[in-house]
Amino acid sequence: MMEELQQLVNKFVSDRDWDQFHAPVHLAKSIVIESAELLECFQWDNDHFDYQHVKEELADVMIYCLQMCDKLNVKADDIIKMKMKMNEEKYPVEKAKGKSDKYNEL
Amino acid sequence: MMEELQQLVNKFVSDRDWDQFHAPVHLAKSIVIESAELLECFQWDNDHFDYQHVKEELADVMIYCLQMCDKLNVKADDIIKMKMKMNEEKYPVEKAKGKSDKYNEL
Amino acid sequence: MMEELQQLVNKFVSDRDWDQFHAPVHLAKSIVIESAELLECFQWDNDHFDYQHVKEELADVMIYCLQMCDKLNVKADDIIKMKMKMNEEKYPVEKAKGKSDKYNEL
Amino acid sequence: MMEELQQLVNKFVSDRDWDQFHAPVHLAKSIVIESAELLECFQWDNDHFDYQHVKEELADVMIYCLQMCDKLNVKADDIIKMKMKMNEEKYPVEKAKGKSDKYNEL
Repeated sequence: MMEELQQLVNKFVSDRDWDQFHAPVHLAKSIVIESAELLECFQWDNDHFDYQHVKEELADVMIYCLQMCDKLNVKADDIIKMKMKMNEEKYPVEKAKGKSDKYNEL
Repeated sequence: MMEELQQLVNKFVSDRDWDQFHAPVHLAKSIVIESAELLECFQWDNDHFDYQHVKEELADVMIYCLQMCDKLNVKADDIIKMKMKMNEEKYPVEKAKGKSDKYNEL
Repeated sequence: MMEELQQLVNKFVSDRDWDQFHAPVHLAKSIVIESAELLECFQWDNDHFDYQHVKEELADVMIYCLQMCDKLNVKADDIIKMKMKMNEEKYPVEKAKGKSDKYNEL
Repeated sequence: MMEELQQLVNKFVSDRDWDQFHAPVHLAKSIVIESAELLECFQWDNDHFDYQHVKEELADVMIYCLQMCDKLNVKADDIIKMKMKMNEEKYPVEKAKGKSDKYNEL
């Protein structure tokens, strides 16, 4: 459950008294920084990667995302569902199906 | 529930026949690209931001993360819990408490 | 001189036989990865930073940019001048002067 | 010539009175944001890309880098040469030649 994860992450932060550092702009920077570390797993090779390393870096991105949800006072579930609804309207099945130019030029 | 979200995202992708484009490296690139769009909400101002816009961009990052979980055949819950355990060992409360140099130099 | 720098960087790459790894997509990933390392110098503090570290990371970004110029068979000078001309037309002085909403919403 | 480019970029900024927005942290964010736009040219395809678009985005990254050099009161030439010397020591030809694990694990 997302809520359980959110609580796990919040407890980790508050136990360390780190909430003071978590201005939204700092979390936004942190999400990019961790995303780039995830990308680094694929820096010189598009096809082969260290599975365990990728999982850890991907988790780091999501952990910062959950911290940002907390900071913004939103539930991850809610904003994901909200955005999925927007995406469904933006990319209707009949127009988007199988198009590789999808997210950009539909 | 995370699983419900994952299914929502998976259905969105398979309805559009987009799974063919979702090589892990493409998803890693997409996560960075969306993260940078989130950061763009704070580009020239560290303190003020468009709340709705931030929520949408943050959701986009998480949606691509869920797609990557699916591609890697892992549950988001599992890798987040795994990584949180690693973080707890890496940053013990007694050493990390209230330190701004935290993630980097402990 | 830019050309001298470009040659310096090219020689470094060819001496190590690294040109084989420098597909444009790999260089694009590398530029993002190095940019994120530059951003990391400002991760938890917007105002104070390690001057020497920032200079090194900034240089790394530019070095990969020069490698990409080489790969694309363009001169850095030429594309910078080309883009500056486009920017000047996009942001005319009379409209853009002193506006913080500049790059985005003019 | 780099110095000529730097002056071109500086004039563009000062003509628009934009220097006030160019705190180092804002420029660091901007460099990442533009780098991600460059990466977007390769988002769903590693091999094919819009050559003109790539040149424009690459130039944007370099233009922000030059603005940051100006803000830090350094010459691009100087920090690139400084860093290239460091790289040459870090990756000696005899050890690095033809190794794809290069930048990471040497």
